[in-house]
Order: sequence, then C-alpha cells, then structure tokens
Amino acid sequence: MGSDAIIHLTERYGLQMEQATKDLLNIVSDWDGKDDGRTAFNIRENCASAGRASTEHIKIESKEDAPGLNIRVLPGTAGEKVYIPACITKAGVDDLVYNDFYIAEGADVTIVAGCGIHTETGEPARHNGIHRFFLEKNSHVLYLEKHVGTGFIKAKRSIDPVTEAWLADGALLEMETSQLGGVQTALRNTKATLEGASSLVIREHLLTDSDETLTTNFDVVLNGDGSSVNLVSRSVARGESYQEYHSNIVGNAKCSGHSECDAIITDHGKVTAQPALTAANEDAALIHEAAIGKIAGEQILKLRTLGLTESEAEAAIINGFLK
Amino acid sequence: MGSDAIIHLTERYGLQMEQATKDLLNIVSDWDGKDDGRTAFNIRENCASAGRASTEHIKIESKEDAPGLNIRVLPGTAGEKVYIPACITKAGVDDLVYNDFYIAEGADVTIVAGCGIHTETGEPARHNGIHRFFLEKNSHVLYLEKHVGTGFIKAKRSIDPVTEAWLADGALLEMETSQLGGVQTALRNTKATLEGASSLVIREHLLTDSDETLTTNFDVVLNGDGSSVNLVSRSVARGESYQEYHSNIVGNAKCSGHSECDAIITDHGKVTAQPALTAANEDAALIHEAAIGKIAGEQILKLRTLGLTESEAEAAIINGFLK
Repeated sequence: MGSDAIIHLTERYGLQMEQATKDLLNIVSDWDGKDDGRTAFNIRENCASAGRASTEHIKIESKEDAPGLNIRVLPGTAGEKVYIPACITKAGVDDLVYNDFYIAEGADVTIVAGCGIHTETGEPARHNGIHRFFLEKNSHVLYLEKHVGTGFIKAKRSIDPVTEAWLADGALLEMETSQLGGVQTALRNTKATLEGASSLVIREHLLTDSDETLTTNFDVVLNGDGSSVNLVSRSVARGESYQEYHSNIVGNAKCSGHSECDAIITDHGKVTAQPALTAANEDAALIHEAAIGKIAGEQILKLRTLGLTESEAEAAIINGFLK
Repeated sequence: MGSDAIIHLTERYGLQMEQATKDLLNIVSDWDGKDDGRTAFNIRENCASAGRASTEHIKIESKEDAPGLNIRVLPGTAGEKVYIPACITKAGVDDLVYNDFYIAEGADVTIVAGCGIHTETGEPARHNGIHRFFLEKNSHVLYLEKHVGTGFIKAKRSIDPVTEAWLADGALLEMETSQLGGVQTALRNTKATLEGASSLVIREHLLTDSDETLTTNFDVVLNGDGSSVNLVSRSVARGESYQEYHSNIVGNAKCSGHSECDAIITDHGKVTAQPALTAANEDAALIHEAAIGKIAGEQILKLRTLGLTESEAEAAIINGFLK
C-alpha cells in the first residue's frame, strides 16, 4: 500500500491514522487504495478499527461476542478482494482479534491480512490474530499474510497468528505467508481439515535475525478422497536466531500430501525441522523433504565473479530463496 | 546358520541346544559354524549361554555385575567375526541382556547379533538386548542384526533392542538391521554420538503384519567436524499393523546428515514418520526425506504382464524393497 493509496483512503473515507500505521501499511499490504467497488477492507490500528468498507458481495461486520470480524464472502463473488491489515504502533499493546471468514459455494476471493508492529521502546507489544476460514464447496481463497516488525531493534514484538481452515469438496485454499524480520518471538499455528476433493497450498517464507525465535506448526488432516496438500516452507535463520518447524500431515483417505522445509542458516542461526506424516489409509500417498544448510560456496563464488561482494552475494541468494 | 553349521557347532563344542534354538539360529545367523580361528561366538538360549568361544583377537567374557557380555575386539583385529545370537524358545521368558563392545583403535570386525523368539502359546516372551559400542579411532564395525518371531500366530513376542554407539575420530559403524515378521510388539531405540570425522551408516528393514506394532527411534548427534550419518529405513506395514518412525539428527559441527524413511502400506497398515533435523552449526548440512504409500499400480501391472498373480507381484516388489 503506497503513500498514494493512503492519501486515497484518507480522502475517500476520512480515515485518521497515525503516520506509523501508514508506514506499516506500506509494508504489509499492496492495495492501491482505490475504490473499484470490488474491494472490502477493515484497517485495525492498536486494537480498534480505523476504517471499514463492505462491498456488494463481501460483508464485514464486527463480532458481538469477541473482538474481531465476521467476513462473509457471498455467492457470486468473483475476483474481489478483502484487505484487513492490522497495525500496532506503540509498545504496551496486546492485541487479540478473532476474524472468521465464511466463503460461499463457488465464491472466489483474495484476502490480504498483513500485520505490522512498530515500537520504539523495549516494552512488549503483541498481535495475536485468530483467523478461521470456512470454505464451502468449490470456493477459492487466495490468502496473503505478511508480518513485520519495525522500530527499536531490541524491542519485544510478538506476532502469534493462528489459522484454522475447513475445506469442503472442491474447495481450494492458497496461503502465501511471510514474516521477514523485526519480530522477536513468533508462534505460528496453522490447522486445516480437508473434506472431499479439496486442496490446500501453503507457501511460507520466514526470516529471523539477532536473537529472534520463531516456531511454525502445521496440522493438516486429509479426510476426503481426492484431497491434497502441498506445503512448502522456506526460511533463513541469521544471527543467533532460532527456528522450529513442525508439520503433521495425516492421510485418512485416498489423498496426497507433500511437505517441504528448506532452511538456510548463516552466522549462528539454529533450525529444527520436524515434519511428521501419518498414512492411515492404504491409498494415502505422503511425502516430505527437508534440507537445512548454509549457502553453497559455489553459489557465492559465482556471484562474486560477477562483481558482487560476499555479503552482497549472500543477500542476493537469500532474496531469491525467499521470493 | 544352516543345519550343517549347527552339526559342526554341536560336534566341535559339545553344545546342547534345543531344536527350536537350532531352527532360530538357521534364520537369524548366517555363520557356517566352521572354526577358522577368526570367529568368536556366544550363543544365548533362554537367558543363559549355551556355548562360547573367544579368539586370539576377540575376547568374550561374562559381565560380573549384570547379565550379558563384555566383548573386546583387540588391536590388530582384521576381517574377524563375532556371532552372538540370542534365542528364546518358550513363552514366559523375559530376557534382559547387556552386551558391551569395545573396539580397539584400527580394528576391523563384523558382529552378528540376531535374535529369535519361538513360542507356541499366548503367554508373553520378550528379549531386551542393550548393546553398547565403543569405537576407538579408525576402527570399523559391520553390525548385522536380524530379529524374528516364529510359532503360534497370536503369541505375544516382544523384541526391544537398544543400541548405543560412541564413535571416535575416523571410526565407521555400519549397521544392517531387520525385523521381518512374527514380533507382536517392538520398541527399537538407536542412539549414536559421533566425534571427529567418524561415520555412521544405518540400513534398517522392517515388516509388520496382523496386529503387530513397532516403533523405531533414532537419535544421532554429530559433534565432530567431518562426521556424517546416512540413515535409511525401509518398512512394510501389512494387515492391521502400525509402525512409528522417529529420527532426530543434530548437527553441532561441520557435518553432514541424511535420513530417509520409505514405507509401503498394504491392507489396513498404518505408518507414522517423524524425522527431525536440528542444525546448530552453520556448517551442518542435513537432509531428510520420507515417503509413505502403497505399491504403484503400474509396478503391479508390469509384473502381472509377466505372468505373476497380483499377490505374487506384490510379494516380489516387497521382497525387492526390503532386500
């Protein structure tokens, strides 16, 4: 979301946002801010809504019994988008939000749910977003989630996302998620239950540095004949940072599952990968792969012969890896 | 160990063994029974030694403080063998044995440690062999371990091996282990600590059927620069059987680790694979792979076109897989 977009938003909807929120929106969201009648949004700033709009097909309402939103994507939705960025701009905030997404049969939607935390002191700040997705038959969701922390380098910023999804026959959920720096501790929990011939595709990109710690857990249960999951997690652990990857894929039907965890360690980074598979049906086909190591010397060498310094070469390789 | 071998043994050493022990030895051990001055052995039958011989380089002694053996493979050992089969021929036996192997610097030895249990009633019988290997610098051990149960099909036979190994710089431990049927419950624990540029190679082959359950755990810690582990476990789960595979490879140095778990499920077999990797050093390179599924239809079809029935084709593929 560029500064033009934010000007659009503030002019059109009269949004009052802190500069820090605007800066974070620049990072976590790619919306151009223009109203085309096909974009719903809710901007969350320090535990409250700074602005909201529904569309004909996408209805956003506050929950009555808990902080958060009910987002209803109605039948006939095609190619529309929902932006629900959440920003925390100061320390001392502990934000907890429950967002439920109800995706009607056959609907097709893109959901963008970035979260940014900016703090300038060592006091803790946390965002804990619990997102549940209910995908009806043959619906399609592209879910983009970008997490970032900015500000004081020794701050205690935590982002602990919980994602739970239920997929009906023929549904497709594609998740592209990333956390690319500035978050001191993160606990990422993703759960999905697939019925019928539904499909889940997850692409996760993670980068930790200094003394950051990150745990990412995936639990996927394949109950439907023809269901499938393809889970790829790529991560880089720099500095003294520590990452744990756990996945558990259970095949209870004629299904296919693939998980892949690739990690690059530099400096004194440490990574644990533990991807479990359980085949409880003769027709379940499950595969996983994991590789942890540093950047191959020959890759660095090749880029150095092109004129890059060693650190430039490393940065280029890591950028490519996390792209 | 064929019947000729057993005749040799009984004639030469005056061994008194039950027929059931002789039958089990046929399965778990490939020794021809001939004395060439280069083969040490101890045959364990229902918790006691039925016969023993040391050689010039390989000394077998009873432990004083626990059931079991101290086996010392002395400097200068080259191309010699130790056979230490253990047989249980009746229900109601709960055998616990501690065997320690001290392998001198530069020694080269093959150790064969099969275990067979034959029972004809439903009463439990168990063998729990705790084997510890201390490999001095540049020593080489080829360790062959075959486990089997025979007799009454609804018996409660358990074989719970514990293997622990410490490898010094330049040492190589090759383990070929198998459990190919007739064991109702098995808990297999293998641990190894590698110092210096030592290497561990493990090839495991498992088959379970009916309501058998099997858990195999591997913990490998790579402490030495240049150390490596290559762990391949292949298994088949038939009937209603259940298998769990866990491995944990920790790289604390400039090391390389590879683990692979391939499982075939037929009937209603169930398999869980959980291979963990932890890289705690920038120069650790760790990889794992796992695949669980049934036999590919095209493989069956190919063999059927050659005239095999479906079950013959399946048997041929499984035999090849576990070979």
